[in-house]
Formats: sequence, structure tokens, C-alpha cells
Amino acid sequence: MGLIANAAARSLSIEVPTWVDEVVAAFRAPLDSDRACLSLAVELARENVERGGGPFGAAVFAGDRLLSAGVNLVLSSRFSIAHAEIVALMRGQAALGESALNPPALSLFTSAEPCCQCFGSLIWAGVTRLVCGATTADVEEVGFDEGPKPEGWVKVLEARGIQVSQGVERAASRAVLVDYVARGGQIYGKLSASE
Amino acid sequence: MGLIANAAARSLSIEVPTWVDEVVAAFRAPLDSDRACLSLAVELARENVERGGGPFGAAVFAGDRLLSAGVNLVLSSRFSIAHAEIVALMRGQAALGESALNPPALSLFTSAEPCCQCFGSLIWAGVTRLVCGATTADVEEVGFDEGPKPEGWVKVLEARGIQVSQGVERAASRAVLVDYVARGGQIYGKLSASE
Repeated sequence: MGLIANAAARSLSIEVPTWVDEVVAAFRAPLDSDRACLSLAVELARENVERGGGPFGAAVFAGDRLLSAGVNLVLSSRFSIAHAEIVALMRGQAALGESALNPPALSLFTSAEPCCQCFGSLIWAGVTRLVCGATTADVEEVGFDEGPKPEGWVKVLEARGIQVSQGVERAASRAVLVDYVARGGQIYGKLSASE
Repeated sequence: MGLIANAAARSLSIEVPTWVDEVVAAFRAPLDSDRACLSLAVELARENVERGGGPFGAAVFAGDRLLSAGVNLVLSSRFSIAHAEIVALMRGQAALGESALNPPALSLFTSAEPCCQCFGSLIWAGVTRLVCGATTADVEEVGFDEGPKPEGWVKVLEARGIQVSQGVERAASRAVLVDYVARGGQIYGKLSASE
């Protein structure tokens, strides 16, 4: 039997480009409100589109400290898991070290409501607050598939002690999605989900 | 503002121990039936417990070719996402290279039914067939939390063209879970999910 030749990859690595933290460093507004923190996620999404990535960005806070930032890296990494939320959460866990398995209260700001994968992942990562920009309907309107989340997914998260805010800086978040599609950006979710 | 000191992790790496592929290479039965393929996932789960990891294993096939194998690496990697299914799917995508974004039909064999995170992830990875050992109830009976999956999640997957088989080698799969708990293994999902 045996594995096929190159299947023995033992180091599964998602490389985050240096410009992500440069965008964070250059961000002018103080991160002292939900709108400001969500705007950072949108700025990351916007820059990712400029760099050929998907139109999604995210940031993780531990209390009111910015812990990590991420963008969608599915196309560059070829890992379907590399959504902006996952990249930001993994970076946050790397920063937390030992305490990642029993983390402080984490807030996840995401430029668009989580898909069915990130919905589940954020629960295990210890997120206690989720703040979203574009809605699931906005994301699906431009052609992306958010996948099957539980009916009433917001209430499902809230029942687990995760506070959810929706539609923060929605217009700006949605504009990045619309711009991506207008530029002919690849709707990569569809490749694996329905083709 | 600024990121906290060590948050700039730019290479997010999950290291898969060498013994995983040694278990695959040493597996005696031909991988020519669902039971045999699922037994490989169970063997990986069993060995992971011996090595101090979580009681979960998985294998990915492209057609009838074994593409990759994985085990739960949450504790060693400190990434909450590093479930066995994710590790196996990421390894499979690394093996597929360019074609990972438009993959061949993939079958995912997992020693236990997917949690809410892996449920979503397997859709984006292009899995077209899911074969499971221990049931969600088995997993939760020993104390792990599978999280909120959509009501009727098997039918939800099937409506997306993903064939699902449940309870294959269930007794052997469940025995690994029970053994893990009997040894005092950490129910790490609980740390982030409910504490």
C-alpha cells in the first residue's frame, strides 16, 4: 500500500506575509471601540485583495490588547482552512504559548461573519466575544458560500457564553467583498464545495 | 497601540511526529475496505494516546489511494484547530500541491464523528465521502464536547454531495476513547469551550 510519494509532509506551515503587521502598525485610529477594531479587520481584508488574496481580515484581542491579526491565505497556502479568522486565532495562540490551551477572554473581530468552519473553530479557541462586519447574506450575495451553520447560530454561540455583535462597519466590510468580485477575484470556496 | 511582543508569529506550523507514518507503514491489513481504512484511523488514535496525545486519528484517501494520515495534535501544537481530521486534510492538501484548491474526490476516515469545526472544514477541503468510527454520543459520553453541529448534520452533508457512513469499527474506536479517559487523559476541549 504505502503513502503516495510526497504525502509525508510533516511540517504543516501557514506563512503570514510581513505586510499584515505593517498594516496593523500603520493603522491610524486608536483601537478603543468596536468600530475601530472592526475597521482594522476591514483594512486587512482590503489590503489582502490588493495583494491577490481573499477579501477577508480578522483581529484577535486579549481583553483590550491587540493579540494578533490575520487575513485569508487560502490561495497562497493552498490550505482550505486558512481563513482570516483561523490565521488570526492561530497567531494569537502562538503568542499565548502555554496558556493557549486555557486562554484569557479573547475577542475576535472579523470583516465578515464566520463560515461553518470558523463558527466551530472559534468556540474551541476560547473566543468569548465575536464582532462581525459583513453579514452572511452579504458574503453569499457576492458568490461565496458560508456553508451550513446551525439554525440560529448567533443564539447558539450566545448560549455558550460567546457574545456576538453583527453588522459593525458593515458597509465598509461589504464594499471590500463587492470590489473583490468586481475585479474578477476567484470564488475559491466554490471550487471545493460544489465542483 | 501595537501588537504585544511575541504576537508577530509569521510561520504557523503544526509539526507531525514521524511515528504517524511509521504506524501507517507498519499497518498489516490491506486498505481495501471501509473497515480496514477505519481501523488504520483507530490504530493512529490508539498510538496517539500512547504518545500523550488525544484519542483521535484520521486518514485521507484520493480515490483508493491513501493520501495522508493524521492524529490530534492540540496538546503538542497548542493550536486548538489541530484535530486529527484537520491534520490529515492539511497533509493531504500539501501532497496535492496546486490541485488542492480543486481536488480529486477525497474520502476522510475518522476514528470519531467530526466536531463542529471539522464538520465545516471537511466541506471546504473537498471531501466527498466521510467514514466515521465512534459516534458523537460516544465522544460526548466520555466527556469531550463535539460542539454545535447543524440539526441533522449527516443529511446536511449528504445534501452537499458528501456521502456519510457512521459506526464503522465503532467498538474499537470507542474503546480508544474509554481507555484515554481511564488513564486520566485531559479533556482539553472543555478548557476552551466551557471554562
